[in-house]
Amino acid sequence: MIQAKGYAAQNAETDLASWEFERRDVGAHDVQIEILYCGVCHSDLHQIKNDWFPGIFPMVPGHEIVGRVTKVGYHVKNFKVGDLTGVGCMVDSCQVCENCKESLEQYCLEGNTGTYNSMGRDGVPTYGGYSDTIVVREEFVLHISDKLPLAATAPLLCAGITTYSPLRHWKVGKGHKLAVLGLGGLGHMAVKFGVAFGAEVTVLSTSASKESAAKALGAHNFVVTSDADQLASVKGSFDFILDTVSADHDMGMYLSLLKTNGVHICVGVPSNPYSIHPFALLGGRKSVAGSGIGGIQETQEMLDFCAANNIVSDIELIDIKDITESYKRMLKGDVRYRFVIDMKTL
Amino acid sequence: MIQAKGYAAQNAETDLASWEFERRDVGAHDVQIEILYCGVCHSDLHQIKNDWFPGIFPMVPGHEIVGRVTKVGYHVKNFKVGDLTGVGCMVDSCQVCENCKESLEQYCLEGNTGTYNSMGRDGVPTYGGYSDTIVVREEFVLHISDKLPLAATAPLLCAGITTYSPLRHWKVGKGHKLAVLGLGGLGHMAVKFGVAFGAEVTVLSTSASKESAAKALGAHNFVVTSDADQLASVKGSFDFILDTVSADHDMGMYLSLLKTNGVHICVGVPSNPYSIHPFALLGGRKSVAGSGIGGIQETQEMLDFCAANNIVSDIELIDIKDITESYKRMLKGDVRYRFVIDMKTL
Repeated sequence: MIQAKGYAAQNAETDLASWEFERRDVGAHDVQIEILYCGVCHSDLHQIKNDWFPGIFPMVPGHEIVGRVTKVGYHVKNFKVGDLTGVGCMVDSCQVCENCKESLEQYCLEGNTGTYNSMGRDGVPTYGGYSDTIVVREEFVLHISDKLPLAATAPLLCAGITTYSPLRHWKVGKGHKLAVLGLGGLGHMAVKFGVAFGAEVTVLSTSASKESAAKALGAHNFVVTSDADQLASVKGSFDFILDTVSADHDMGMYLSLLKTNGVHICVGVPSNPYSIHPFALLGGRKSVAGSGIGGIQETQEMLDFCAANNIVSDIELIDIKDITESYKRMLKGDVRYRFVIDMKTL
Repeated sequence: MIQAKGYAAQNAETDLASWEFERRDVGAHDVQIEILYCGVCHSDLHQIKNDWFPGIFPMVPGHEIVGRVTKVGYHVKNFKVGDLTGVGCMVDSCQVCENCKESLEQYCLEGNTGTYNSMGRDGVPTYGGYSDTIVVREEFVLHISDKLPLAATAPLLCAGITTYSPLRHWKVGKGHKLAVLGLGGLGHMAVKFGVAFGAEVTVLSTSASKESAAKALGAHNFVVTSDADQLASVKGSFDFILDTVSADHDMGMYLSLLKTNGVHICVGVPSNPYSIHPFALLGGRKSVAGSGIGGIQETQEMLDFCAANNIVSDIELIDIKDITESYKRMLKGDVRYRFVIDMKTL
């Protein structure tokens, strides 16, 4: 076994703290990675607090992982020691179901294995990226270009692919009006991708103070949703809304902003169900859809697209000892737009 | 003005009763129709009872109208006296917005004018098909083939187009597994169209007693949703669910029956909003969509398709004096599958 150290929650009531644990030895198809940076996702906090479902403790969060290969199994073909690599939200899947065969491992019919808070197919819990090293089967390791600033690349592994994938799936681009709902870790990536794909991007926000930041990211328009006149001016105007909000919100109001045939795509996960009146859908053949991260092939495509187009996340680099304080700031929306842990500080 | 008689609700508390009223004179672009049959839609009852919104009273319901042309305005090109015609849920729209131009008059950006319980563009309330005659602008009148039994054609004008349109829009056909939820006026048409388009059709029902009736309509499979084993056998198996139910129901349970990328299409209108947990959508890139009736061009296409494929509604012909009793039976699901009023009995 490999000795590893990280930050873990011992249960849902405690703060994260230093913890030593074991990783499996590097198998024939495995890649071992020295973790250099790990992004801090809102879902890390949801999971250590059991907001969604009872977690597996001790829990080492983190699924926006970048680092350098330190060892490879003898069957590994696509990685060598020294390569820059990334690991996102999944580390395994059945690889044989119809979804896995179409590189939709996130929708593996047996369930994918999460990078943390998940039971591995070997019966051992998985531990995430708030740690010094990780061992992952080759198929779930991504290549990272050395053209991009590495720390700012980490959030692409979750926030990036989670917004890139639905925009590609629904072919959002030139001629489309895209509204981005929520301007956090996911939302700011949605703006960057929407603009890169040629859409006219409007940020919808409850907070007028975010306008200049939204424009700086490339958004063409900004609408304060609490301003009735501004809201009225965009009624029935959007082809797509990409909804990154993980707090409860009024779906009827947002659906009224869609054109006929418009699609409201949810990638955030509020704790409570959405409440949607049928007339809000029937009145214009509208849809509410969900999308979960993206497949491995598409994640690599996204990373390559980012390298070619110089797209990364806007981040604030933190010491791991400041993680609890950073969670508090994240809850207040006080981060532009993603915390990334510098693993040297572990 | 033209003297008309019909059955009207004087307010939301009273039963329908005989009422005499006036229709506008036949204008240059109008067609006058002697109504021979009118279908009884669940939404007639919702509207006379103010279930959805405060209605315009006195209210003459009915938007599944078939009859014979008795007079045409001098600019009318496509109809002549004696023609068999139909009128559905709309009698007017702005005709100039982008949706009207694409023959999506049901989604007219100014709002379409309903066949009844709607304020006409002339400022006069519209009165529906539970009456002896109606005057409608030419663009909203449909041609009906004399190959089909006329009374059974009436429900095509609402129940038919409401199910035909989404199946066409989402290109449901060969190779698809379609579940039909609810086996009433809309559901039985959804089964007929789904089968005609080549899909494998499964009826989902809470009532085991409907199996033989579903199979008689052409359904390939039947699943009793209260039977846990039957339900488990169809988890993750449908490409589409066409949801015709207008009572509250458990959307999470139905969404779990969809494949990855599956679409749950709502055409019924429960009084309460749907409650949909985000994970039920994200877990397989699923959508909940709505669809409202269909445009005029598509309604004509549907009627022509029915004539070519010998498709009509299964009906029970009633006397108009039995309308209140028929509503009671409709509420209990005691009709296979649509009441149609024989207007000779008016």
